[in-house]
Amino acid sequence: MTHLIEPGATIGILGGGQLGRMLALAASKLGYKVHIYCQNQAAPAFDVTRFSTVADFDDEAALKAFAASVDVVTFEFENIPTRALEIIENIVPVFPKPGTLEKTQDRLLEKRFIESTGCACAPHQDFESAEELKVALKEIGRPAVAKRRLSGYDGKGQMAIRSPKDARAAEEAYDGVPSVLEKMIPFDREVSVIVARDRAGDVAAYPVAENSHENHILAHTCVPAQLTATLEAKAKVMATKLANALDFVGLMAVEMFVLDKDGTILVNEIAPRVHNTGHWTIEGAVTSQFEQHIRAICGLPLGATDAYGEVHMDNLLGEAVLGADKHMENPHSHYHNYGKELLKPGRKTGHVTRIKLKP
Amino acid sequence: MTHLIEPGATIGILGGGQLGRMLALAASKLGYKVHIYCQNQAAPAFDVTRFSTVADFDDEAALKAFAASVDVVTFEFENIPTRALEIIENIVPVFPKPGTLEKTQDRLLEKRFIESTGCACAPHQDFESAEELKVALKEIGRPAVAKRRLSGYDGKGQMAIRSPKDARAAEEAYDGVPSVLEKMIPFDREVSVIVARDRAGDVAAYPVAENSHENHILAHTCVPAQLTATLEAKAKVMATKLANALDFVGLMAVEMFVLDKDGTILVNEIAPRVHNTGHWTIEGAVTSQFEQHIRAICGLPLGATDAYGEVHMDNLLGEAVLGADKHMENPHSHYHNYGKELLKPGRKTGHVTRIKLKP
Repeated sequence: MTHLIEPGATIGILGGGQLGRMLALAASKLGYKVHIYCQNQAAPAFDVTRFSTVADFDDEAALKAFAASVDVVTFEFENIPTRALEIIENIVPVFPKPGTLEKTQDRLLEKRFIESTGCACAPHQDFESAEELKVALKEIGRPAVAKRRLSGYDGKGQMAIRSPKDARAAEEAYDGVPSVLEKMIPFDREVSVIVARDRAGDVAAYPVAENSHENHILAHTCVPAQLTATLEAKAKVMATKLANALDFVGLMAVEMFVLDKDGTILVNEIAPRVHNTGHWTIEGAVTSQFEQHIRAICGLPLGATDAYGEVHMDNLLGEAVLGADKHMENPHSHYHNYGKELLKPGRKTGHVTRIKLKP
Repeated sequence: MTHLIEPGATIGILGGGQLGRMLALAASKLGYKVHIYCQNQAAPAFDVTRFSTVADFDDEAALKAFAASVDVVTFEFENIPTRALEIIENIVPVFPKPGTLEKTQDRLLEKRFIESTGCACAPHQDFESAEELKVALKEIGRPAVAKRRLSGYDGKGQMAIRSPKDARAAEEAYDGVPSVLEKMIPFDREVSVIVARDRAGDVAAYPVAENSHENHILAHTCVPAQLTATLEAKAKVMATKLANALDFVGLMAVEMFVLDKDGTILVNEIAPRVHNTGHWTIEGAVTSQFEQHIRAICGLPLGATDAYGEVHMDNLLGEAVLGADKHMENPHSHYHNYGKELLKPGRKTGHVTRIKLKP
């Protein structure tokens, strides 16, 4: 068992985007120092700490120096090269444990892992060639979604197949690419469960969040989700089961589809990290997801996950983050700006949270 | 009227202690960059930003370079040399306006200012020599407190005079020191009002906080204060009046003594900055005092000041901040550690907040 990592120690974070930035702010509140490692020197997390490394994930010397200068390492995104994690783990503890990523980085292995715990996924079939995709399409039927097994987020690396024309386009685009074809199931609601698990195996799940996406990017999260108490409990049990089966240390998100009110819940994917659908917790829950993750990886007790009421979180994309004064017109709005240099269209640049307290 | 200072801009903060650190964290949440200026290179605020200047407040070149690199300047403590503020103000806006400090840095001028607004202070008499102190003691009577006019905080520069022996000690200690003798009035409660005023003159006061001190250092804050609605309103009106009379921009704290339930409230002192008795607002109010200050100085709308319920804040001094795991045993506790290198006895090193939600 790794020892307690007390405030005053330095937490190394791989990745310098908004998730790394908000992790750094939460760690600072608890008295930790933060060292950000990121290849992009304009990454917004660099602005909120004095300790930084700008280097690629294949820069062995930089990785070693970084690992030697910190007390524990975590990451803000899951697609970190395995070799980089190995180099770091030889020097300093990494949480979540790198082995976890083997089960979640690859969409096919992820689905196999999910099903191994007794949780259900949408019907799916892996393929690597145009020929295999044709076979899979016969098996699964349309509408379906082709997804690359590796490196997808926010709908990237995905293609919906509704028509024979879509099928031909996918056969061309995915020929030779290890992928999964997934049945597109009509669902009632998209929900997610943010769950933390500490080094002693204690688990704390947040209330289920209900999410809506636009162009494959999260637009809105609302807590509580409009679910029966039975379904709410079922979703939390599923997330807890997955965290336990991964022997997970840290905070993760499980995205799910609720098919109908009879209780069918399919797991869509696991994000082994703090997650956009958990941003509502910063002001809307007793403990923010970012602090909860820091607590878990440092060996501190997990905080309470209660929501303060009905919470709404709206993502701000690109230049929508501008006009802070307008976003603050409602004095109860909580405005977050990630401090990004470039406000690229479709990129996450901030969010706004509102809380309706319990009556 | 200074223009709106939008997120992405850089806020310069004079002082690198815990108040500067928490201001920096709040500014980062809103998307600002932060530049800390402090003479102490081990100051904890340096850890939470990439932009820093380690220099004295009489280093003209450093002050000018700092001012030229930021979009607005504020401060975490009020005893900044006037000359330093003049140098900076010639280059970039400073909020609260440096002129404000002339009325609050000097205890005598502060009392005169307070009384000029119609608010009451404890009876007092200024003195500069042992002889004048004797005269003042005859006038004011014992028990009384001698306080240096300049540079006092947390009871420093103060001496209680209860006995003839105390009087003789004070005559020696304060001979030649511009000071004020203040009558020690028995009071029911010590309270404070945190109030913010923006550049348009809008004012937002937080619920009145009730404070208890140990060895002249704040130990505990509780919100709401145990006051009648009339007294609560009266205290807020007084703080608002003082903020308006100062033409204040930013957030300030007014410490008051409530003498008895008939409604006499004396102003003890004004702190023209974020304040220890406002730390409860970080989790306990809709808008934290730190964010509120940043909003005010940047020209953004003020946030709501409602408390979420009954809030208790306990200061942690010296090594009491250690044992984060123990402080987190209650999963509803909010633990703050200021990341100080040296945990000197009696120095503020962290705090813990607990909220009892409204039933």
